[in-house]
Amino acid sequence: MPKRQIKLGLSMRQLGYHAGGWRHPSVPADGAMRIGHFVHIAKTAERGLFDLLFLADGLGLRQRDNPAGSLARSDRNVELEPLTLLSALAMVTKHIGLVATASTSYNEPFHIARKFASLDHISGGRAGWNIVTSWSEEEAKNFNRDKHFEYDERYARAAEFVEVTKGLWDSWDEDAFLRDKATGIFFESEKMHVLNHVGKYFQVRGPLTVERPIQGYPLLVQAGSSEAGQEIAAASADVCFVAHTDLRDAQDYYRSVKSRLGKFGRDEDSLKILPGLLAIVAPTEAEARDKYEELQQLIHPLVGLAHVYGPMGDLSAYPLDGPVPVPNDPQHRSRAKVLLDLAERNNWTIRDLYLAASMGRGHRTVIGTPSQVADAMQEWVDGRGADGFNIIPAILPGGIEDFVEYVVPELQDRGVYRTAYEGETLRDNLGVPRPKSRHV
Amino acid sequence: MPKRQIKLGLSMRQLGYHAGGWRHPSVPADGAMRIGHFVHIAKTAERGLFDLLFLADGLGLRQRDNPAGSLARSDRNVELEPLTLLSALAMVTKHIGLVATASTSYNEPFHIARKFASLDHISGGRAGWNIVTSWSEEEAKNFNRDKHFEYDERYARAAEFVEVTKGLWDSWDEDAFLRDKATGIFFESEKMHVLNHVGKYFQVRGPLTVERPIQGYPLLVQAGSSEAGQEIAAASADVCFVAHTDLRDAQDYYRSVKSRLGKFGRDEDSLKILPGLLAIVAPTEAEARDKYEELQQLIHPLVGLAHVYGPMGDLSAYPLDGPVPVPNDPQHRSRAKVLLDLAERNNWTIRDLYLAASMGRGHRTVIGTPSQVADAMQEWVDGRGADGFNIIPAILPGGIEDFVEYVVPELQDRGVYRTAYEGETLRDNLGVPRPKSRHV
Repeated sequence: MPKRQIKLGLSMRQLGYHAGGWRHPSVPADGAMRIGHFVHIAKTAERGLFDLLFLADGLGLRQRDNPAGSLARSDRNVELEPLTLLSALAMVTKHIGLVATASTSYNEPFHIARKFASLDHISGGRAGWNIVTSWSEEEAKNFNRDKHFEYDERYARAAEFVEVTKGLWDSWDEDAFLRDKATGIFFESEKMHVLNHVGKYFQVRGPLTVERPIQGYPLLVQAGSSEAGQEIAAASADVCFVAHTDLRDAQDYYRSVKSRLGKFGRDEDSLKILPGLLAIVAPTEAEARDKYEELQQLIHPLVGLAHVYGPMGDLSAYPLDGPVPVPNDPQHRSRAKVLLDLAERNNWTIRDLYLAASMGRGHRTVIGTPSQVADAMQEWVDGRGADGFNIIPAILPGGIEDFVEYVVPELQDRGVYRTAYEGETLRDNLGVPRPKSRHV
Repeated sequence: MPKRQIKLGLSMRQLGYHAGGWRHPSVPADGAMRIGHFVHIAKTAERGLFDLLFLADGLGLRQRDNPAGSLARSDRNVELEPLTLLSALAMVTKHIGLVATASTSYNEPFHIARKFASLDHISGGRAGWNIVTSWSEEEAKNFNRDKHFEYDERYARAAEFVEVTKGLWDSWDEDAFLRDKATGIFFESEKMHVLNHVGKYFQVRGPLTVERPIQGYPLLVQAGSSEAGQEIAAASADVCFVAHTDLRDAQDYYRSVKSRLGKFGRDEDSLKILPGLLAIVAPTEAEARDKYEELQQLIHPLVGLAHVYGPMGDLSAYPLDGPVPVPNDPQHRSRAKVLLDLAERNNWTIRDLYLAASMGRGHRTVIGTPSQVADAMQEWVDGRGADGFNIIPAILPGGIEDFVEYVVPELQDRGVYRTAYEGETLRDNLGVPRPKSRHV
């Protein structure tokens, strides 16, 4: 029986995920605004035969200055806009998928359908859309609102948004355009479909002014962690990005989502589940640990304290190497319970607490040799907890350089990772089917 | 005294402006959907040292099927989205400006500010925004509306939209980002500016999540033909794209707009006026005429009749080579008056009528030798009717290939056109100033 093959995405936002990473000597601190930074990352990931590049996104500065001074010490503020960036990267890569996040809360389906269809054509069938809703007040305030949409409305709007977008992508049959110079017929009228959508949130006539995407639809990506989210993902997502730190949780999720596919007439392999994986890798375990410790030391205390501000409140007046205080405010006390228990059990100082809380951001973290990282990956893929991973680099470009240098050859040697791209499009390489038009 | 230098833009939408152009043997009929088509055009224009590439745009299929069958014979239906396309082209060009049209009617300032700022950074300071409002019912229906906004509301919304966008571009002082790895300070707090805009149409907090554009603001382009439009252009545009067929009209407009600049504290040279110019050029005048006649023969009669449908109604039941009938409908009769007078005076058939109406789309047309085209250009520039031209190619890529091969060397020989790019950014090359931030 052939070995289970591992699929790989690279989450390449900004300078990587580590809160102190921008201060590392190898990191270009202005990289998030420089196209050259991303060209290098994209080419490195493509050299490593990654399936896709992924850009998370937010429509505003979501972080508040809590505690005071933390915002000015964080690098999460300016960056290139994802679709503009990926379109540029399409021109310097040939095989790797290009997945951008776009929110359904503050966009219009016509714009989104048009831009992703364009990116798919420009890239030769490599576009993907990570479908999200916007949940922060900071973003709402950039789009004529005081508050963000409530959960139910956000999801109802998202569901309708995606349906309209798919409808627009199906505006033209793939053989609609004859472009017959002799007769002068450019397209066949009956192969143009006017959507005429009238729904609760959107009223969109169509047709889209772009040919049907090369992939039929761009790859559709969702998080899909809640019960409702799993159901939506099973109905229509091609990829799920998830965050699990424990194999059993990952297996439960994997089983739950995959078992839903049948009722939508879908094959188990037609949806790929890619948990996030923060890997810090070096030739020896000691070197990998050193890399990690070096990064941890670079977290400015105010930035570290910002990571625990939500549950713990402002701890900036306390000594960093003293004990973790119990918040006076009873509301805080209940939100802080998990952290307080951990701190007590481990005898943590405030510094220990924020260093622990800053790690991985809910994603599985593996620190070790190429062999250890490969083992950790195979364990989850063979154990049916994952179809592959969305690699979360601690720093960029170092995180992807190391992964491609150390882990990719190890995976190839084990026969669990490609040695060349298999297909032409992102869907081809991932092994997910190309959707048919509703009109065919 | 040095000779007046000519500035050049290339309007590169789809397959060129001629209604029959897509049927020409040299034209790739699927080019509007192919990135390679635009890469070739962009590189050719850059070889010709053009200041900028320009993409017109519409947010929907604006053309109706009048008369029946005309829509399926038109090539104006699918194309790549302008911002996605220009971002890709930024990677295969080094000097040429990249100007995209974006409507203020169905967009949000935060998205537009963000995307154009990104394009400006990706391209190294070559982005431009052609600011338009949307006036068609077909576009409105793609954005949750039954009717488009009325004139006054459209323009009031546009004015506020542009102000908000500029405010967002000024979110960060240019020296805000210290990125000091030693101290851990990423930016100086007092150099971040929260816009907090609350207006009639928009409520936008900010700050933008992109650094201030390299050009300060991307180049701002407007049409500005009406009295109100001229006033807005004089207040804030860097370039005006206009359509004039007569030198006297061009001179009147030029004088009118330039004379308004002083009261806004602006220099006469700080705004460039570029009328459209459709040039068909060949080594001899006879060859140029032949090129033109060849194209005219390629206009399908239904497509030709669509060009006169507005004023004349449906003429498809009449013999094409017969006389032009007077419409029965009195409303049509008054709208058709200009065309009817022309037809009577010139003894035109229906075919003659639509061939004449299809030409140039309101832009000045010059058919001739390189020397004749250069004469026509110098006449307007020296006569203070233009600072240069937005070249409207009849077909693509042929129109720009011919212009660069024949006209550019002629202009250079005359000493009225650059022989190398002067500066780094689009503003540098055009010779328009870089706007200062409101906070400096």
